[in-house]
Amino acid sequence: MNLDRTHDAAVKSWLASANQPHCDFPLQNLPYAIFRRKGGAEEFRAGIALGDQVIDLAALVRERCLSGLALQAAVACAQPSLNAFFAMGPDAWRALRHAVFALFEAPAAGASTMADTPALETCLVAQTDVEYNLPASIGDYTDFYTSIDHARNIVKLLRPDSALSPNFQWMPLAYHGRVSSIGLSGQQVRRPLGQRLAAGHSVPEVSACARLDYELELGIFIGVGNQEGEPIPVTHAERHVFGLCLLNDWSARDIQMWESTPLGPFLAKNFATTISPWIVTMEALAPFRHAWERPADEPQPLAYLDAPANRSEGGIDIQLEVWLMSELQRKSDAHAARLSRTSFRHQYWTVAQMVAHHTVGGCNLRSGDLLGSGTISGPTAAEAGALIELTAAGKTPVALGNGETRAFLEDGDTVVMKGWCERPGFARIGFGENRGKVLPARVVS
Amino acid sequence: MNLDRTHDAAVKSWLASANQPHCDFPLQNLPYAIFRRKGGAEEFRAGIALGDQVIDLAALVRERCLSGLALQAAVACAQPSLNAFFAMGPDAWRALRHAVFALFEAPAAGASTMADTPALETCLVAQTDVEYNLPASIGDYTDFYTSIDHARNIVKLLRPDSALSPNFQWMPLAYHGRVSSIGLSGQQVRRPLGQRLAAGHSVPEVSACARLDYELELGIFIGVGNQEGEPIPVTHAERHVFGLCLLNDWSARDIQMWESTPLGPFLAKNFATTISPWIVTMEALAPFRHAWERPADEPQPLAYLDAPANRSEGGIDIQLEVWLMSELQRKSDAHAARLSRTSFRHQYWTVAQMVAHHTVGGCNLRSGDLLGSGTISGPTAAEAGALIELTAAGKTPVALGNGETRAFLEDGDTVVMKGWCERPGFARIGFGENRGKVLPARVVS
Repeated sequence: MNLDRTHDAAVKSWLASANQPHCDFPLQNLPYAIFRRKGGAEEFRAGIALGDQVIDLAALVRERCLSGLALQAAVACAQPSLNAFFAMGPDAWRALRHAVFALFEAPAAGASTMADTPALETCLVAQTDVEYNLPASIGDYTDFYTSIDHARNIVKLLRPDSALSPNFQWMPLAYHGRVSSIGLSGQQVRRPLGQRLAAGHSVPEVSACARLDYELELGIFIGVGNQEGEPIPVTHAERHVFGLCLLNDWSARDIQMWESTPLGPFLAKNFATTISPWIVTMEALAPFRHAWERPADEPQPLAYLDAPANRSEGGIDIQLEVWLMSELQRKSDAHAARLSRTSFRHQYWTVAQMVAHHTVGGCNLRSGDLLGSGTISGPTAAEAGALIELTAAGKTPVALGNGETRAFLEDGDTVVMKGWCERPGFARIGFGENRGKVLPARVVS
Repeated sequence: MNLDRTHDAAVKSWLASANQPHCDFPLQNLPYAIFRRKGGAEEFRAGIALGDQVIDLAALVRERCLSGLALQAAVACAQPSLNAFFAMGPDAWRALRHAVFALFEAPAAGASTMADTPALETCLVAQTDVEYNLPASIGDYTDFYTSIDHARNIVKLLRPDSALSPNFQWMPLAYHGRVSSIGLSGQQVRRPLGQRLAAGHSVPEVSACARLDYELELGIFIGVGNQEGEPIPVTHAERHVFGLCLLNDWSARDIQMWESTPLGPFLAKNFATTISPWIVTMEALAPFRHAWERPADEPQPLAYLDAPANRSEGGIDIQLEVWLMSELQRKSDAHAARLSRTSFRHQYWTVAQMVAHHTVGGCNLRSGDLLGSGTISGPTAAEAGALIELTAAGKTPVALGNGETRAFLEDGDTVVMKGWCERPGFARIGFGENRGKVLPARVVS
């Protein structure tokens, strides 16, 4: 990936909050969300995070702060979804990011204050004053399964007599997920009812899920789609990807065990999926690219999944954490408990390979489509991205630090996911948070 | 289901073509589509089929032929999708159907010709002069697997050492499908490329699908959705269903065999799904309801899937046929070959059970969502709804009658599905046709 001035950590913003050391949203990030001021009187529209503010792109247009392709891109952003902006493609994405970077960068030492700072200040809204909406109108949602550590953990726990499915090392496996129940950080998720088969029984029962779990994933937003019947080559795949967010693939393990053969997960997953509001662009992630390596004794990627750039920098070193805040912790003002920490760089398949595989048969992606990366679990036990792995399917509960333990999620639990990139010499690029709370099951009448 | 005057075969239309004996669209049917005059100058909008004409609902509004709830419903139809009309619910659907029935019914013997017939004639467009669009903006597409004859055939052919999955008889199994590649009758489907594992090999290859198949299904359009976390009881499920169409779930069997464990079908299905343009309402199908029986020695439905009305009339006796027209047949003006014929009444699970199961965990359905019934195969070999069953996975090709045979689909083949209901004393209720043509695979570069 090319690095340029927008990746230079030495460049500061005139907005002080953007220059704080642990800020998720420095000048080098500039992620996108759909927002409005709280209260519901305004239309939802696109904004960019900077420090503790939201840059209102519609206001930048109104104040005549933009021109050329950046202006056209900002006009496309003045809508309640980012789909039209996505469809403009990487040149437009880059033009707007660079123009906003220039508007909000601090003047060089000795130069006078920028003339239009007062106008720009009218384009800022405090993040504490806004509410968010889904960033895009999502046409299709596909959930991948691309962490070999996660896959091996699951096989060991649930089907100890079988091996990793032989196709896993040949293709990024995936299934289609549910769009209607995708919600935004803050989503309240009702514990699902469903059929499950108790051990040793042959007749299933219907009850509230007893093994409710999260899955730590990244969400991948498709910027530019493809025509039906026209695969996207792996070499071009990243030009079709706009950016990434945090994704919680809530999972009902008991329902999943009983329903999933032969058609895969259905009700075990489709009651809720939660994403974070801010989409971090692929351009902002450029300094954190990582080699993607396939050990020589494992299957090498088939031609349509292989490219030099994918090997040299297909991975991305995104630090990820899952925290849990129980109702008891919340009421006693206790700290949340960190359940795990890992990095996206361990993933067995890359974002470009997911896109190339998804389209190789001619399936068309559209602007605003969402891909889930699949659970992100690293090579050690503490890096597991789901409770089922951390607790050995409930047999070894984790301690929350306040005396409570968890085998699976309980009512009132809030799951918080965090993500960020850090590397010496570069600004921290953060994803913000993804929160979701478990509500009790509906009473069966 | 209640039968009323709109189901009475003795009532004729003043439009002669609606009274022809084999007409799919008599006055008792009145199915909906989104259409416009060919040429592209007009906006797409909703119409109702009658005889060989389309009733333009926007024109009925303009000519002031409607009032009350029927008028409101017709106004909601003056859009390029039926979603808003769907969301109005069964009272509105019924009001519009009954109002249109009254406008187009022939005057009683001895009565003078209806005064407004000339105005109504201006609201008709010949079906030969129109083109169609997808009837709804489809938010999610779910494909079920509800024919036990199909499931048993597939297990016998592909996994002879295993039994029918034990969950099959306890729940209507399903997986989420792809929305972006759903096309309308007339769709040209490019043969997909993909990974497959040749028998006896351990390394997969990428090539054009060699086992391309169709699956005969019905499409089920959701009229009214539900809130996330609020299941739809089986007793109310049909009030959420607007109507049915013909659906071809194109399937790449070799890709499916290699990719489907453990997450189910993905690229094997997501390159194309074809639906017919006309949606036949549940109300028009009322005379053809059929008892749904579960043999006493098989698992009886769990409470959330059981209801007296579902047992007494959960089934629907819809006759279905699949025809194949090869390129050679087409060029020589030969007849198409009928591959199979069956009825939807054999299905192991009903439409109401599909809706109740889909939502039991809290998953929200939305107006315009599409469910596929799953392949419809009847109890005898000639009633199979896919080539893989008819040809014993390619081992016993079927004859097309002109010397050609088919193990699986070949380039240039057109698959035609037809559906209709017939019962002595009632008008024939037809679905029209669902056609799709196979294009050669893209050349691998």
